[in-house]
Amino acid sequence: MLAEQNVAELEEFCTALNAGRTAEFMEGLEDHELWSVLQYAQPDRRAEIFGYFEEQRQVELLEEQNLDEVASLIEEIPPDDRVDLIREFSARRVGEVLNRLPVDERRDIQRLRSYPEGTAGALMTTDVAMLSETLNIREALDELGQQASELETIYYIYVVDEDSLLRGIVSTRQLVSSLRTPEKTLGEMMETDVVVADVDEDQESVAEKVEHYDLLAIPVVDSGRQLLGIITHDDVLDVVREELTEDAQRIAAVTPLEQEFLRIGLLDLSRKRGIWLVILFFAALLTAFALEHYDAELQKYIWLVSFIPLIISAGGNSGSQSATLVITALTSGEVETHDWPKVLYREALVSILLGGALALIGYGAAYFMAPTAVAALVIPLTLLAVIFVGCCCGACLPLIFQRLGLDPAMMSNPFVAGIVDIMGIVIYINIARALL
Amino acid sequence: MLAEQNVAELEEFCTALNAGRTAEFMEGLEDHELWSVLQYAQPDRRAEIFGYFEEQRQVELLEEQNLDEVASLIEEIPPDDRVDLIREFSARRVGEVLNRLPVDERRDIQRLRSYPEGTAGALMTTDVAMLSETLNIREALDELGQQASELETIYYIYVVDEDSLLRGIVSTRQLVSSLRTPEKTLGEMMETDVVVADVDEDQESVAEKVEHYDLLAIPVVDSGRQLLGIITHDDVLDVVREELTEDAQRIAAVTPLEQEFLRIGLLDLSRKRGIWLVILFFAALLTAFALEHYDAELQKYIWLVSFIPLIISAGGNSGSQSATLVITALTSGEVETHDWPKVLYREALVSILLGGALALIGYGAAYFMAPTAVAALVIPLTLLAVIFVGCCCGACLPLIFQRLGLDPAMMSNPFVAGIVDIMGIVIYINIARALL
Repeated sequence: MLAEQNVAELEEFCTALNAGRTAEFMEGLEDHELWSVLQYAQPDRRAEIFGYFEEQRQVELLEEQNLDEVASLIEEIPPDDRVDLIREFSARRVGEVLNRLPVDERRDIQRLRSYPEGTAGALMTTDVAMLSETLNIREALDELGQQASELETIYYIYVVDEDSLLRGIVSTRQLVSSLRTPEKTLGEMMETDVVVADVDEDQESVAEKVEHYDLLAIPVVDSGRQLLGIITHDDVLDVVREELTEDAQRIAAVTPLEQEFLRIGLLDLSRKRGIWLVILFFAALLTAFALEHYDAELQKYIWLVSFIPLIISAGGNSGSQSATLVITALTSGEVETHDWPKVLYREALVSILLGGALALIGYGAAYFMAPTAVAALVIPLTLLAVIFVGCCCGACLPLIFQRLGLDPAMMSNPFVAGIVDIMGIVIYINIARALL
Repeated sequence: MLAEQNVAELEEFCTALNAGRTAEFMEGLEDHELWSVLQYAQPDRRAEIFGYFEEQRQVELLEEQNLDEVASLIEEIPPDDRVDLIREFSARRVGEVLNRLPVDERRDIQRLRSYPEGTAGALMTTDVAMLSETLNIREALDELGQQASELETIYYIYVVDEDSLLRGIVSTRQLVSSLRTPEKTLGEMMETDVVVADVDEDQESVAEKVEHYDLLAIPVVDSGRQLLGIITHDDVLDVVREELTEDAQRIAAVTPLEQEFLRIGLLDLSRKRGIWLVILFFAALLTAFALEHYDAELQKYIWLVSFIPLIISAGGNSGSQSATLVITALTSGEVETHDWPKVLYREALVSILLGGALALIGYGAAYFMAPTAVAALVIPLTLLAVIFVGCCCGACLPLIFQRLGLDPAMMSNPFVAGIVDIMGIVIYINIARALL
């Protein structure tokens, strides 16, 4: 179609399908082809299709294509998304693009760029349906009809006074179901007890509110309750996904990447992993010193050496199970720090069940490798004790770190591993000494 | 207020605040007090407040309070939520409650109960705004105004033909912004390329669609494209949270709990953890056999024993970092199986950087514990090799399991641990043999 410059077909292609599907069909094109096809779409449609490309590709296109076309596209992209894109531009390009935008758009972008990442301000969009409380339902619908095509969402209407202080909200649903009383004003209908996010509020705390109250969007206000923007449900979903992915990475002792896995620089990746590997390494060095201390015993009963990795890994695995369960329960709000006695009691019982089962299997193996059946008892007894310590440590440390205001997901793993490894060795040798 | 039977104040209390906040204020009450207060709220408001209590408490209240009041509350609870609650009832209570409901509500509940958990059908609500394509905008708004108060969401209007087959959708936003052309029909305005979920579709696949297309709700259809219900954004958020939490648990070798951490039975919890501990235990037993095989060497060079836990944990930790990063990247779609050469290449480079750093520290420690400076070289060389193996295994196994259609999060950990542990021992002893 492009080769033939078939304008009608190209325009049809950009309009007929859902924007997301249109974008998928275009993904295979070269950058300049894709850009030419986009020019056949209506401006708002163009921005919508564009929003479905991968972020990396969006940045490349905006960085390299015709400046005037880029500027007119940027005008149509929702305020929160375009600020994210502009953050990735080269400094020169930022200047060029901003200079071609109308002054109010430029100010809006600069203001949004000034909020630190991870706060409500950086997440919000400024396209928001603000109406005065004196409007009645018919006027409000009229006004909304004019604004609607430019707004990302019109599912709540924010009622503000003349200084744009937030007075209340009315849902479009309320508006539509009150069509029979068109003279009622927004001020009479609005709900005044509005759940809001502070502009400096941490994004995870905002996400919690939206999730708890099942909101489609949450208004963002400054300390004087002036309405600055809104955060919509799709951005909240991204925050929740990011937060949980980071938790999983922290549990595996990786400082959260905050970039795509295949795009992050290798030195950066090595640093984020290396820090924790080194800390864990020093914890493991303690086991080396402990074992050196028991040189003589080990040389005498060399069969004990064979079981060292088994004992350490049994303690480590059960400990990391407990820690992960407590960390995920803390994140989802199922457990709070004051639940510690219940958590500890349950983990202690579970560890006895698990330790008992592994002790049985362990005794079976030890029976064949130890010199006597009594000597073999060292293995099951050690396993039981080590798994007990592993579960209790794994359960308590995240709660302690949470209580101290530290991130339980980040801190727990090295400490659990360190404590369980060294305790494992000490318990092992002392049980052996007592029995042999 | 309750003691004084102050009706006016109780009614005011139930109406003035946001429903979520009202529920928070009521949480401290005894069950029967809370139930009495609820009776002062309007029926739809009552259901809204009720929805904010913890699920466990909701079930208790519905199970124990007055049957007629319970039945009238259940009529008001959104169809998807009430089915989830009824699943927790005792069999006798289910019968009692269903018998008091109008016949269409009863049928609706029975139909929703029949969809297996984890499918789109079990997640959907049947309160959906269905309108005929022949309606014009004015008629549609009128009709919507009548339905709105009973619907969970009116942000998309589903346009259906006389057999309730889905023809297209119109957003309320489109409707409101077209108020100036009130004679236009829904059929003329509607988007026909609708993203739908199949009623049997897995909930994770539904969540992906909603997330990719930034939808507020997705329609659920049967194989004949008959519209059965919709899934709203808040239920999708729950699915994403559940899925990522389960991933974190799987990575730590726990079969996903599928229940709250503090509520799951201890035997059940032990089983879900025990299975994987036993599998990991058998993997670790292999290291015990390997070490027994090298008895003679170890007895001769007893200082080598001290470093066994250190070497195994360095390999295990770097392997679990790699595996977790690849698994989270697979879940978020950043990595696909065909990216394996790039992933492997990058992990190999990172492992050399990480291994190099740990080898340096390791040589420092070994220098003091080994008999000669040359003998101490065993430790850094082993660390480098083990970390290389750990990272490569950790990166490849999740990709291989994904390719085979197995769950990478569930399968990778035991295999990575098993392979890395045993390879660690074999590499260690062979490097020692070569150098000493």
